[in-house]
Amino acid sequence: MDILKNIRVVLVEPIFGGNIGSVCRAINNNGITDLAIVAPRPETDWEDARKLACQAKEQFEAIKTFETLADAVADCTVVAGTSARTGFYRDTAYSPKEFAPIGLESAKDHKIALVFGREDKGLFNEELALCTHIIQIPSDALYTSLNLSHAVYVCCYEMYCAAGIFVPSEEKAEEASSDLRERMFEVWREMMVQTEFTHKQKLEHMMMGLRRIFTRGKLTVPDVKILMGLAKQSIWVADQWNKEKTANEHE
Amino acid sequence: MDILKNIRVVLVEPIFGGNIGSVCRAINNNGITDLAIVAPRPETDWEDARKLACQAKEQFEAIKTFETLADAVADCTVVAGTSARTGFYRDTAYSPKEFAPIGLESAKDHKIALVFGREDKGLFNEELALCTHIIQIPSDALYTSLNLSHAVYVCCYEMYCAAGIFVPSEEKAEEASSDLRERMFEVWREMMVQTEFTHKQKLEHMMMGLRRIFTRGKLTVPDVKILMGLAKQSIWVADQWNKEKTANEHE
Repeated sequence: MDILKNIRVVLVEPIFGGNIGSVCRAINNNGITDLAIVAPRPETDWEDARKLACQAKEQFEAIKTFETLADAVADCTVVAGTSARTGFYRDTAYSPKEFAPIGLESAKDHKIALVFGREDKGLFNEELALCTHIIQIPSDALYTSLNLSHAVYVCCYEMYCAAGIFVPSEEKAEEASSDLRERMFEVWREMMVQTEFTHKQKLEHMMMGLRRIFTRGKLTVPDVKILMGLAKQSIWVADQWNKEKTANEHE
Repeated sequence: MDILKNIRVVLVEPIFGGNIGSVCRAINNNGITDLAIVAPRPETDWEDARKLACQAKEQFEAIKTFETLADAVADCTVVAGTSARTGFYRDTAYSPKEFAPIGLESAKDHKIALVFGREDKGLFNEELALCTHIIQIPSDALYTSLNLSHAVYVCCYEMYCAAGIFVPSEEKAEEASSDLRERMFEVWREMMVQTEFTHKQKLEHMMMGLRRIFTRGKLTVPDVKILMGLAKQSIWVADQWNKEKTANEHE
């Protein structure tokens, strides 16, 4: 979907090749394909990056590099910087969930940027100054230091979810109707009687228990067929047992 | 918060030490501290795991190991398995967002488990059979293979968000009242006149433009003070300029 193609993920001076590779996967998992690195470091292990990119090899080859953050976001309208700390105008931060619809609104017609700082020092103040929005990822007060690719993942995941593109796997089997369900319960009642599972005066009580168990979630037609078949088999076994008993009595 | 302490993250036969270390960080970032590994592999690089755990060293030391998944989840009520594929009863999957409140409801009083499969093969059918819920992480149809620690991160992040513990950084400065705002606009109007910025007949039109710009977001008291001070300074400069002009005319 084009709206996600308008989102550029920008990494400022990342240190570890492994993180860059993991970011390639993270953005592709969420339908995003525009990745830029500002001021790549000579010491970065690019072999590690390629390895961690796994099947996101194309993404890895397509990384753009820029000398400055200003260059990397020059054509973007909304520029959202991520920050763990507070202070220096970081106090009006959005959560990734709150930011997602705001960012998507602009991404309909324009390039927007999600900007992530160095693993050790984050974004500098002069970089945050270029940002129109600050994103703060919710995290435990005792352990606020996020891995770079985890931070990228969460922000991109929220954009992807908010875009509403994903079609979840759904139960394809038909849901059972009340009529089918009731026929099944009739068979189970019969089974309880035939197997001598319960006293007659407790039968309705047990049936109510069974109803509660089986209707706690949705029952599909195949589910009902399994349950009905199982009960019928028990009735058949009870019948066989009765026949055996009768035969043995006659011996 | 205790509710998150009742969530156990279970990794089944993970291959890469780096992923195990990244998972240590991922769960701690989201307030979760119970990590179990089922059937650890002899070839796993535990030094790599320790390195990637970064400051989550304590978490790394606290990893529990089990021989089977059944052992690892024996004391858990809800057992949620993650799966990328569909089929074999995977079709009634929950998204991490949908599952979070369901899981937390049980985690109030009981241990629950989030189960993640091998990097290459996921969870086997007999392992999914132990699960009460299946979680499917929304991802792009073209690139569905998630890094293990990314999958863990997203599931834990949704649990953490749903727990409602996080207190975001908020703007601490007082929001400006209408009265203060109007005094500021008065000074800006004066500045427009004194600096001869606009013709008198366009003044109200320009003022409306300024109002739209400055009230698009919330203005705080310090914001208004900056804007008011800046306008006053321009008025002062315009005044100095007029005095110079008058003086020069008299020379």
